[in-house]
Amino acid sequence: MTIPIHKAAIIGGGVIGGGWAARFALNGWQVAVYDPDPEARRKLDEILANARAALPAVLDSTLPPEGEVQIVESVEAAVTEAAWVQESVPERLEIKHKVFAEIARFTSPDCVVASSTSGYKPTDLQAGSPRPEQLIVAHPFNPVYLLPLVEVVAGEATSPETTERAKALLTSLGMKPLVVRKEIDAHIADRFLEAVWREALWLVKDGVATTEEIDDAIRYGFGLRWAQMGLFETYRVAGGEAGMAHFIAQFGPCLQWPWTKLMDVPELTDELVQTIADQSDAQSGAHSIRELERIRDTNLVGILRALRTTNYGAGRDLNTWDAQLEGDNT
Amino acid sequence: MTIPIHKAAIIGGGVIGGGWAARFALNGWQVAVYDPDPEARRKLDEILANARAALPAVLDSTLPPEGEVQIVESVEAAVTEAAWVQESVPERLEIKHKVFAEIARFTSPDCVVASSTSGYKPTDLQAGSPRPEQLIVAHPFNPVYLLPLVEVVAGEATSPETTERAKALLTSLGMKPLVVRKEIDAHIADRFLEAVWREALWLVKDGVATTEEIDDAIRYGFGLRWAQMGLFETYRVAGGEAGMAHFIAQFGPCLQWPWTKLMDVPELTDELVQTIADQSDAQSGAHSIRELERIRDTNLVGILRALRTTNYGAGRDLNTWDAQLEGDNT
Repeated sequence: MTIPIHKAAIIGGGVIGGGWAARFALNGWQVAVYDPDPEARRKLDEILANARAALPAVLDSTLPPEGEVQIVESVEAAVTEAAWVQESVPERLEIKHKVFAEIARFTSPDCVVASSTSGYKPTDLQAGSPRPEQLIVAHPFNPVYLLPLVEVVAGEATSPETTERAKALLTSLGMKPLVVRKEIDAHIADRFLEAVWREALWLVKDGVATTEEIDDAIRYGFGLRWAQMGLFETYRVAGGEAGMAHFIAQFGPCLQWPWTKLMDVPELTDELVQTIADQSDAQSGAHSIRELERIRDTNLVGILRALRTTNYGAGRDLNTWDAQLEGDNT
Repeated sequence: MTIPIHKAAIIGGGVIGGGWAARFALNGWQVAVYDPDPEARRKLDEILANARAALPAVLDSTLPPEGEVQIVESVEAAVTEAAWVQESVPERLEIKHKVFAEIARFTSPDCVVASSTSGYKPTDLQAGSPRPEQLIVAHPFNPVYLLPLVEVVAGEATSPETTERAKALLTSLGMKPLVVRKEIDAHIADRFLEAVWREALWLVKDGVATTEEIDDAIRYGFGLRWAQMGLFETYRVAGGEAGMAHFIAQFGPCLQWPWTKLMDVPELTDELVQTIADQSDAQSGAHSIRELERIRDTNLVGILRALRTTNYGAGRDLNTWDAQLEGDNT
């Protein structure tokens, strides 16, 4: 009954920052958001409404009382007395450096200062920082209030305590922190997304498939596999009793085939952008973005609930989704 | 009450051919399998047992009475009087050509002769065939009895009637036929899988992530998204009210970043293969392949059931999963 109240500061309240705000608030944290956008309150409230409709439906147990989400007028007001600061400002290094310098002035040394960046490595962010040891990358996935994965990447100057604190705290929010072993451009997951995105652009450009056909190729096939078992375990099963080495020996030669389009970067001409936008309208234009968000979240809740009673229930994995209530640590 | 009984011939009864046999049999077809492997019966029965445990659990309605699955001693015995022939022999063109020549001798002209190949284009398969117009690619995804997607690719000589018949018939099996507009190496989905696989090999080779960490990066994050909404629709939502063109303008420049590893093909040395096999053992070795299959299928059933009541229930899509009982066509 005595849940400690923490304060999280969210710097940048867009789709990602707003998702973080909702994730913290629904887990009982007080949240202060700094974002100069005059529309910030409306956008935040919409994300909070989505999160309230979705996250509790995944869980059997109840969440703690929701924390308050305030919009404040300065970085100082946001980060003062915060135990966690999450930076989600635009992906421009000079802006981020300025924000981190300001954050360092008003936070205590044991506050974790995390960046949502996918484009920069933590050591890039730490350059010139007066307190780089508290700075770390915590890269989430949209919708942040619902998807468990968060990539945690330490920079050269990040203290081991910061990494440990980040991992424990993200776990307490019901997330799955994946501590990345080495700094690398785009961390891990986005490298895969980038590879698929590049290839998808070629397929549209060359008229092989429309955006809808590509989406169908994903969601009726390997997307269903990957929601519950990753690449390697799926292939382990496909390899059957002969094992993983046998599977690779079979599959390996394919890498030499002339799938050259996979390698090149397609030119994003105005024409290609327009083709994609038009096809996307034809595919999804009957629904507003808000409707699509609700469809997505309803689907995700259904999938996550199903996995809690199968994959998780089979005892193969830590039950991330109840961790925040039972104090488990991954 | 008067369900017509069809006969399907399965040439090659491994993981893919066996999955096809199960898909047809559970939908009431008589199935004849030709495979010289002396273990074929045992392997087929294991796949059938998996399919019986999984496919009915996805559906609210009941399937027709299961068809018989026989193993026969020749291609001739398998394909005679068949309405559908599915070739899933090893990926070697000269073997496939021989098999298709044999099939053509004993099938009627209106029989669809489909290949499960991912490695060859249908026009390659048609070279030298006495009856190329009935030949088409129908590339499924493992487990074939459960995953809906099947890529349908016509070759230069494939008749429009064959394509139409293939599409209707696959739909009647509860599948989602995706007719690919142009012949292209690896069709569509495998090009994405290849891109991700290559990048994953680099990450393991460079010690950035283990096989388990890569699998976690997929299944706790974008894998959950892709089970229910593909690449383009997901990004449409992420782009928010500003729309798809805005999203691409933001994301586009990333394609120029130096993610060079994405482009190269890693050398599959013995050492790398061993590293992957060892990491995969550490990750999944506590479970037999049979157990992993059951975990996978139980998860897939849970996800597909969940999606039937959300995504499908929202009226956004044809209800593929009941199509075989209601005669719908996609």
